[in-house]
Amino acid sequence: MSLPIGARIGILGGGQLGRMLASAGARLGFDIAIFCPEADTPAARVAASHWQYGYDDTAAVQRFAAECDAVTLEWENVPVSAAETIAATGTPIRPGVLALQTAQDRVAEKTFLEASGISCAPWRAVSSVEELTSALGEIGPDAILKTRRDGYDGKGQARLGAGSDAAAEFAKIGGKPAILEGFVPFSLEISAIVARGADGAVARFPPSRNEHEAGILRRSTVPCGLAPDVIARAHAHAAQLAEALDYVGVLALEFFVMANGTLLGNEFAPRVHNSGHWTFEACATCQFENHIRAVAGWPLGPTELICAAEMDNLIGEDIASTPARLAAGESVTLYGKHAVHAGRKMGHAVRRIQS
Amino acid sequence: MSLPIGARIGILGGGQLGRMLASAGARLGFDIAIFCPEADTPAARVAASHWQYGYDDTAAVQRFAAECDAVTLEWENVPVSAAETIAATGTPIRPGVLALQTAQDRVAEKTFLEASGISCAPWRAVSSVEELTSALGEIGPDAILKTRRDGYDGKGQARLGAGSDAAAEFAKIGGKPAILEGFVPFSLEISAIVARGADGAVARFPPSRNEHEAGILRRSTVPCGLAPDVIARAHAHAAQLAEALDYVGVLALEFFVMANGTLLGNEFAPRVHNSGHWTFEACATCQFENHIRAVAGWPLGPTELICAAEMDNLIGEDIASTPARLAAGESVTLYGKHAVHAGRKMGHAVRRIQS
Repeated sequence: MSLPIGARIGILGGGQLGRMLASAGARLGFDIAIFCPEADTPAARVAASHWQYGYDDTAAVQRFAAECDAVTLEWENVPVSAAETIAATGTPIRPGVLALQTAQDRVAEKTFLEASGISCAPWRAVSSVEELTSALGEIGPDAILKTRRDGYDGKGQARLGAGSDAAAEFAKIGGKPAILEGFVPFSLEISAIVARGADGAVARFPPSRNEHEAGILRRSTVPCGLAPDVIARAHAHAAQLAEALDYVGVLALEFFVMANGTLLGNEFAPRVHNSGHWTFEACATCQFENHIRAVAGWPLGPTELICAAEMDNLIGEDIASTPARLAAGESVTLYGKHAVHAGRKMGHAVRRIQS
Repeated sequence: MSLPIGARIGILGGGQLGRMLASAGARLGFDIAIFCPEADTPAARVAASHWQYGYDDTAAVQRFAAECDAVTLEWENVPVSAAETIAATGTPIRPGVLALQTAQDRVAEKTFLEASGISCAPWRAVSSVEELTSALGEIGPDAILKTRRDGYDGKGQARLGAGSDAAAEFAKIGGKPAILEGFVPFSLEISAIVARGADGAVARFPPSRNEHEAGILRRSTVPCGLAPDVIARAHAHAAQLAEALDYVGVLALEFFVMANGTLLGNEFAPRVHNSGHWTFEACATCQFENHIRAVAGWPLGPTELICAAEMDNLIGEDIASTPARLAAGESVTLYGKHAVHAGRKMGHAVRRIQS
């Protein structure tokens, strides 16, 4: 099913990803409706309408679905129940319930990645200090403990090593159901971002090399410098995952790349992704537009690289570098967030690198 | 004066140019407020707020100016009185009253172009059949009669030739104060679009070659194929004009190019221009973003051509070609207009041409 020109697309979530999706949707002539409980959000201020209700307000979610021709999301922690409510109305929700359920639980995610043929670092589900102790015995002490749910940007994580106290570390992440992942000595991190259309067609964005600090993405660089066969495998894995999830929209799959070229799946995001923001400046079609095209059932756009690029996140007070970056010829995108907090993503800057 | 991050920029007018300006402004983190009397306009549906009042509602214009940190416009026929009202509040209005006054009257426009050192085709102001007859005697029968005010997209124009009846032609344009312009046998039409910053810095976009049908722009192509010295003269003229107008923002100056390379100024638009829409796909910074940067007093972005491009306007039922154009890899921008009318600009499509 493809949407008619001028249709209304709903977006669950009101942050910067919704803002950039809303602008891309408007450029294609769609009317964008934002559903999120917060007032005055980055996305709502560039959209035709804002439905300010809780995701658990079933009646509001049903009315929203009835007013929209298709619904998507910009945040992977939208309650699955809201997506189920929309699906039950008959309005397409893209991506769907399975992708959301899987991405919200790190154990379900790793299980699904492996079932889709994507190798991961060793991991164990742990729900108690005893299970954590036992898992450390199997995986080894060099590991990362993460809550199964609700973690992002390094939150709800603890880095373990020789001599770590299992009880103290488990307490540090709130004693919540968790996953223990063996730390792997990777050479670099990349993300493979693909868009899958309603017809199953897949568009592959050039993978970027990603650098994190304190769990937050700092920089993405394209091209990533890996050999074509490694890139082809990363793309194939992302496409496999999208197909296994019967996915429609943009999906980002993060990998650890080992020195020998082995790819280990880390996690995926059922949405447009921070490590793909540079696609706006450096690809023939950006991730935001291809996501909207997929959600609308429209043909995907070409994704070839127009120029090499480097993207820096502007985190917290980094936003003060905006005038200098603009004066130096960088492309700066700001998210319209009123308050600057440490660790808050305020914008990003892209340098186009002429070949 | 440069605006702080997150400032509010007001736009007078609610059409597609306002829509694209609003999106460019949002990308830079600004809050965009649209002022226009119509409901549910293309621009208002992508902006943070919509002030739905008449341009002659002085109190509303004053309140709008008080709520905005700077005001600009997307339509050259905004009443000068509204711009004067804003200027009187102390809120910057960019471009200013002089540019608006000059652009709204074809006689003032030609006079100003010539005073700025830009040659034009022969012209005469005509307010009566007698003056028209006399002007035809001086200029010759091959000419175009245009109302001094309120003409666009070929409206309010009549093409005259040998045997035309002056009285009938003058009646055809409503018997309004008019200008008679000698028809010149030009080789091609180009537009030189420049952005002038609040500090006087000028950014020059590559001129496009423009093709019109029935007075409406059909296609713009870059590069335009003219020799570098002709392009340099076109840019110099546009920069001269911007300086003479003490202009801040994007200005488009249209030229007729004669076979020997002579440039004759036709008209200018004190705003972003249809013949520059391809800058979104093909320039390092697009006209919309550079206009917003200028209005904000921020540094202008680089304007070099990233790739050759061809833009087609989608007029009326042309919008039905959207799926085929997308499938062929074109970039399509739709304006979110609900009703399709013959002659109405519904969107545009850009083909990037790889060199």
